[in-house]
Amino acid sequence: MNAYITRTYGLDAQFELTAVPTPELVTGHILIEVKATSINSIDNKLLRQNLGINPALPAILHGDVSGVVSAVGPNVDSFHVGDEVYACAGGFKGTAGALADFMPADAKLVAHNPASLNFAEAAALPLVVITAWESLMDSANIQPGEHVLVHGGTGGVGHVGVQLAKAKGARVTTSVSSEEKAEIARSLGADDVINYREEPVEAYVERLTQGRGFDAIYDTIGGATFDHSLQAVRTKGRVVTVFTGTGSTTPDLLNAFIKGATVHTQNMSIPLITGEGRAHHGKILREATKLVDAGKLKPLIDPHRFTFAQINDAHALFESKTHVGKIVLTI
Amino acid sequence: MNAYITRTYGLDAQFELTAVPTPELVTGHILIEVKATSINSIDNKLLRQNLGINPALPAILHGDVSGVVSAVGPNVDSFHVGDEVYACAGGFKGTAGALADFMPADAKLVAHNPASLNFAEAAALPLVVITAWESLMDSANIQPGEHVLVHGGTGGVGHVGVQLAKAKGARVTTSVSSEEKAEIARSLGADDVINYREEPVEAYVERLTQGRGFDAIYDTIGGATFDHSLQAVRTKGRVVTVFTGTGSTTPDLLNAFIKGATVHTQNMSIPLITGEGRAHHGKILREATKLVDAGKLKPLIDPHRFTFAQINDAHALFESKTHVGKIVLTI
Repeated sequence: MNAYITRTYGLDAQFELTAVPTPELVTGHILIEVKATSINSIDNKLLRQNLGINPALPAILHGDVSGVVSAVGPNVDSFHVGDEVYACAGGFKGTAGALADFMPADAKLVAHNPASLNFAEAAALPLVVITAWESLMDSANIQPGEHVLVHGGTGGVGHVGVQLAKAKGARVTTSVSSEEKAEIARSLGADDVINYREEPVEAYVERLTQGRGFDAIYDTIGGATFDHSLQAVRTKGRVVTVFTGTGSTTPDLLNAFIKGATVHTQNMSIPLITGEGRAHHGKILREATKLVDAGKLKPLIDPHRFTFAQINDAHALFESKTHVGKIVLTI
Repeated sequence: MNAYITRTYGLDAQFELTAVPTPELVTGHILIEVKATSINSIDNKLLRQNLGINPALPAILHGDVSGVVSAVGPNVDSFHVGDEVYACAGGFKGTAGALADFMPADAKLVAHNPASLNFAEAAALPLVVITAWESLMDSANIQPGEHVLVHGGTGGVGHVGVQLAKAKGARVTTSVSSEEKAEIARSLGADDVINYREEPVEAYVERLTQGRGFDAIYDTIGGATFDHSLQAVRTKGRVVTVFTGTGSTTPDLLNAFIKGATVHTQNMSIPLITGEGRAHHGKILREATKLVDAGKLKPLIDPHRFTFAQINDAHALFESKTHVGKIVLTI
């Protein structure tokens, strides 16, 4: 089969079209004929740095996939040849990624595509849905009526966070960097929007919570945004933070201690690397399929569309940070 | 009435016997004829530093009290004159402390003494029970059968943490600094004991959890112990940390991010300072009274006993860090 492989990790790493053997099917796995993938922050980070969780070189990167089941291994009951499926199923140490004609996937990680989405749209969702679900539902355990602040409401994880929090019945505020993005955030269901370049933390905490602070804050940005989150959370509130690799790992927790706050860290790659807890990912995607088909969750996709042959250009756009939502690629 | 007041905060601050007006009784409050108090870390810190939450000077410090109800204000149904009670009811900004003949207390914060304890024993418990309860039950939400590591198992908060975790049905490991303290920790119910001066983190994680890590860790020490906690916790585990004022507020969270772990901070003084959430403290103490009278919780009290007239000596012992468990004083 053809694959877009990576021969080195680093700033000058590129994807290169190469013929490689088609993966063998093992127990509990399916083979997916790849139709689309999307770029997540971790895919780009694995390309640019060796984080210790990178696949062995030469590597096939990218976690998110949507496609058609082309073969089913032993001990798989829930999928059949021809099923349209999506997953975040590989691209880490020990697992093959989606930048190829076929991707092997542990069936536990996979769900059937939402009927209302095409392959490109479905491929935008897996990693960000799993990340936001684990953050908001599992860790912060947000409740109907709570006031939840999602930082970065038009970003890959943030736009799903806004919609999941709304679907749960929370009041949702989100932060963005422009009036154009504020419009998009409102269209996703955000009740209130903060332009973080124009409004200081104290001002929006006063304006939106009468100084009390938010019940739960989802920091999808890191760095200074994490510090702002500890300022803006209420007494005994919860902050969920995604390590983006750009912020410090030694933030000042003094505001957390003063408030008796909780800091949840989020790392959705653990089941992919350790093998433990994979069934929970499949379950989250089955729930996501229901939310999508009920009209409560939709992917936000950047207008620049790419084919797999343009994978290097797609990552260049990702690194430019000028995109909105997810960057998707079709084969 | 007589009180042991503090006229300055700082390294040379002393307690001084002085006649002051007896507190006036306000709605929802009771007046407690003080029989005993105990020293908590925060009492000593408030004496030595102005933390921004100190009472106005001259101040009456100390939160923990046990005594006899001498007067009952309007809108108090649950207590009557002559009742024996205990609480952590003041000694912070805006509230009078226990180092006096009488202490006013919001009735929401108060519970009836355990029948099986004398006043000195009861006065050892309130702050540390509330702290450990909020940490283990409310924040970490420990479950029967989970493996819980409590750092500092013969300390003020730690010795209660060990017993509460056992009462909940957890497997409890604790860390101590000597074989003598290990014996005490076992007598409190600890299943396994670590001498942290002799056994490295990797070694006890392997010995006690086969390398998997502890489900929940209660860091009652701070500083390097917090770093060790992030090393020793399992994937998606929980660490509860009490800000002791001695450790850094900027620990490295990299191990938390790698594991997707949660960090709960614990600050039991918030209801005393803000007035919000006080009823929960009274409820915890009512539960503690049941556990004590059922033989599942007992205070660990240093053999050096003091009267209120020896309050300066008692704080000197506390600062020497040679004591075990709680230092108590009777009037």
